[in-house]
Amino acid sequence: MGHLQMNQRRNPTAKSLGEHKIIQLIQEHLTSMPNMPVPFGDDVSAVNIDEKRVAVLKTDMLVAKTDVPDEMTLFQAARKALIMNISDFASKSVQPTAALVGLGLPAEFSQKNIEEVADGLNAGAQEYGAFIIGGDTSETSDLIISISLYGTAQKSTLMLRSGAKPGDVLAVTGFFGKSAAGLRLLLSECVTSKTAKALVDAVLMPKARLAEGLALGGCGAVSASMDSSDGLAWTLHELARLSNVGFELEMVPVAPEVKRFAELNSLDASELALYGGEEYELVLTVKPERWNAAVATVEAVGGQLLPIGKAIEEKRILLRTEDKLVPIEARGWEHFKSEV
Amino acid sequence: MGHLQMNQRRNPTAKSLGEHKIIQLIQEHLTSMPNMPVPFGDDVSAVNIDEKRVAVLKTDMLVAKTDVPDEMTLFQAARKALIMNISDFASKSVQPTAALVGLGLPAEFSQKNIEEVADGLNAGAQEYGAFIIGGDTSETSDLIISISLYGTAQKSTLMLRSGAKPGDVLAVTGFFGKSAAGLRLLLSECVTSKTAKALVDAVLMPKARLAEGLALGGCGAVSASMDSSDGLAWTLHELARLSNVGFELEMVPVAPEVKRFAELNSLDASELALYGGEEYELVLTVKPERWNAAVATVEAVGGQLLPIGKAIEEKRILLRTEDKLVPIEARGWEHFKSEV
Repeated sequence: MGHLQMNQRRNPTAKSLGEHKIIQLIQEHLTSMPNMPVPFGDDVSAVNIDEKRVAVLKTDMLVAKTDVPDEMTLFQAARKALIMNISDFASKSVQPTAALVGLGLPAEFSQKNIEEVADGLNAGAQEYGAFIIGGDTSETSDLIISISLYGTAQKSTLMLRSGAKPGDVLAVTGFFGKSAAGLRLLLSECVTSKTAKALVDAVLMPKARLAEGLALGGCGAVSASMDSSDGLAWTLHELARLSNVGFELEMVPVAPEVKRFAELNSLDASELALYGGEEYELVLTVKPERWNAAVATVEAVGGQLLPIGKAIEEKRILLRTEDKLVPIEARGWEHFKSEV
Repeated sequence: MGHLQMNQRRNPTAKSLGEHKIIQLIQEHLTSMPNMPVPFGDDVSAVNIDEKRVAVLKTDMLVAKTDVPDEMTLFQAARKALIMNISDFASKSVQPTAALVGLGLPAEFSQKNIEEVADGLNAGAQEYGAFIIGGDTSETSDLIISISLYGTAQKSTLMLRSGAKPGDVLAVTGFFGKSAAGLRLLLSECVTSKTAKALVDAVLMPKARLAEGLALGGCGAVSASMDSSDGLAWTLHELARLSNVGFELEMVPVAPEVKRFAELNSLDASELALYGGEEYELVLTVKPERWNAAVATVEAVGGQLLPIGKAIEEKRILLRTEDKLVPIEARGWEHFKSEV
């Protein structure tokens, strides 16, 4: 083994470590806050305000180089930076109140560009009832939009990643695969169809399931919840790991437009839906006796709750096909490791 | 006038606009939150928790390319990212409770580099009683550390930028110019002296005046306060503008080490102290009848409060020299405009 390889093994780079291992490494070097109401590794962080209420905080950074396709406008990119964070709040059933913006701008960015970013930030916040109340700007090589989101919640209504029990219904708030298909449409020569706009819109103008998340927190039916921005498969593995269960899926919730797109382009629709990422549906588990109440709650706010399987004792993520159980792999989109 | 110049005038770049104008532009495009307890443009942002308490939030981004001299270790850079934010909390008299970290890492960053950053982040937070409770990591060209700080405070103890009245004592929590001198020592061929370490330490291991700020908030003597990270002169202009007063300085609080450094290097010590920036002293105004109480309060926590002048009706920032009043210019370190 060469010296460089030895050195690389002892002191690997960010690229070889990948986002998840990097975050784990950093956590190991941090002093934990006593009595954290939400543990490290959940979608959001939180601090106790009093016995019942918590302040909920989240930061997520949009980097144009990796997170913004060329076809996305600056308005859309700035709006998306908000959506990424609001989706995490939605998955915990927390209304975002205020956002701060850490904006890294290239020196040659124009006034019009800056105004377009400001409009996109404001639109993303206002769409979900939040306000941008402050921020900071610095000079950077890439366009960088680092959002910090704040809200408060009753501790009792927070939907953490860790509460799923065997027998709980596994559910999602919508169909998957549109972002992955839309991104392929934007990047490559894929055959388009009548539904191309819906697929491309999923990339350019994503929505957060805030109404659904807020409604579900109040109904007490959800045992675990997570947003699906790292992809459905990865989300299932994380939910399972943190809840100490497994999942058996009856079906992969592939969007109808994605099925058609996959057929036209000889792609695997399930692959797009499971491993695509950059989607903002909620993936959650519901206590079986409260299933009907949960469905009614979500439908009352104009959403849908699709049952796709159940939590099981065995610590595996399995998909039931016609004649067998197939494991779903623990992969998805990951910063540093995934190719853009 | 050439076409390019015309175009540049109608659609100027971030570099020609400068940080302050960029922030103003962005604000003009944002919907204001009703009943903001702290207005746009103060050192921190805040949201009401109940009638008496506020949640205080701040984000500030450290970009290695512009904010980190080559001689600064990664530990020091990460620690400094915390200090920059904690200093703003100090100036408002708010204890920071928790921090989130948005970390942008170059792909070739090594595991050891990452661990050093994590240790610096933790050290900066722990030094001031805060905990890092979450974050996010992305791939960027530059090393970027975007900190979001959270704490709560009684609304009545917040020290805003806007309350100075003519006749109030203008005071600072320490002497100025060390960072500017230290940076010159690091960057150039300046003559060093026995005090070089103190100057260089001011750059590499800055301190936030949190104990002083917290003590002063409780004593009810301070009418306005701001941190001095953009430089003393700029801070005075901002405090004056937001309080609708002017200031008359009796002296420039130049650190003794800076006087010696300036003499050895034929530099203007006052220039270093007024326009240097990257310093984390508090600049505040104190009601004259509460001056002694304020001094006693700060000394009780091991700090000092130096009177340097007074607030005046006339909206100018003036320095009294032996025989005349000299205006202090409204300039300091500004992202985009200042050369690194």
